[in-house]
Amino acid sequence: MSASPIGPGRPRDPDVDRRIARAALEVFGELGWPGFAMEVVARRAGVGKGTLYLRWTGKETLLADALTHGLAQISDVDTGSLRGDLIELAQQMLDLYVGPASRAALRLTMEASAIPEFAEHYEAMRTAQILASRAIVRRGVNRGELPDDTPVTLLLDTLVGGAMLHALSTPAESRTTLAKGTTGHAERLVDFLLRAVVRT
Amino acid sequence: MSASPIGPGRPRDPDVDRRIARAALEVFGELGWPGFAMEVVARRAGVGKGTLYLRWTGKETLLADALTHGLAQISDVDTGSLRGDLIELAQQMLDLYVGPASRAALRLTMEASAIPEFAEHYEAMRTAQILASRAIVRRGVNRGELPDDTPVTLLLDTLVGGAMLHALSTPAESRTTLAKGTTGHAERLVDFLLRAVVRT
Repeated sequence: MSASPIGPGRPRDPDVDRRIARAALEVFGELGWPGFAMEVVARRAGVGKGTLYLRWTGKETLLADALTHGLAQISDVDTGSLRGDLIELAQQMLDLYVGPASRAALRLTMEASAIPEFAEHYEAMRTAQILASRAIVRRGVNRGELPDDTPVTLLLDTLVGGAMLHALSTPAESRTTLAKGTTGHAERLVDFLLRAVVRT
Repeated sequence: MSASPIGPGRPRDPDVDRRIARAALEVFGELGWPGFAMEVVARRAGVGKGTLYLRWTGKETLLADALTHGLAQISDVDTGSLRGDLIELAQQMLDLYVGPASRAALRLTMEASAIPEFAEHYEAMRTAQILASRAIVRRGVNRGELPDDTPVTLLLDTLVGGAMLHALSTPAESRTTLAKGTTGHAERLVDFLLRAVVRT
């Protein structure tokens, strides 16, 4: 139990927060928006419905929070080198689509625009991710690591799409092995694609 | 109305078949397996439920048929050259994910293993597609168009994943434009990736 009170003197248990976030992603992944309800998430997390309403005003903000924290944070990627940044980006995608939030992320791709309460938040998330990915490539061009005429969209489509598809098409029984070795696969993927863009 | 009788003297209307297949993909795409029912598909297609039961024994075979005919047929790809085959493969993926069966294809990726009646059929389809894709690359190696040590999985992950992500991340208002120009994008994608694998 955390000792630091948040809100009006109410201490928060980080373990409960984690359980709720995980339950929210699971329920959304399995049932989609039509089945996503505070009560179902509370039951899955093993907490009372009241606990959820102390933290979130409704299911829109609960899902938005769980997704914001549970999905990849591409905006944070800046390792100082193009290869490093691209490996980090590829690894985030592999980790996401091989991990427990995989179904929630796919569901979001399919359903976000059909959830009126959520479409705007999702668009903002997606735009931020696209801008952050493009910034990685632009920094590489500015550092002289890539030619000026690098096809940014093709490079990012093949990197992100290649990582995503690899994770999704890995059979269930091999996922644990891939989950432990995402760095190695991310490196091979990036080195493969860099051969298409870096002049030798 | 087609004049050729199929079955015991019953003429089939190819337009009705197309409407049913399209309705089946739409309903599955929107509602998934839990909402997929003969009655719902019949209503969407504007035919009686009896018409469906004359053709299919149940919703499992109806969906299997609609998916088999509505999704990409990678197994048919053999243009005689590696570049031609890869462009065809990329274009099929772009057409699929930018077209009306896009949601059904995504839904399948997510839900097939959770539909007991359908998991086996889907696994067979997926295996056939993977084998056909790998055969394209192997023929390229045999013709001397690719080096022996070509990383087959990386090439196909980035090609198929790159085409899929490109189509899915195209905003709704630009989809019609992309749908008309999938060949051009498929060519750019393939030429980009070939630079990574073909020794110059």
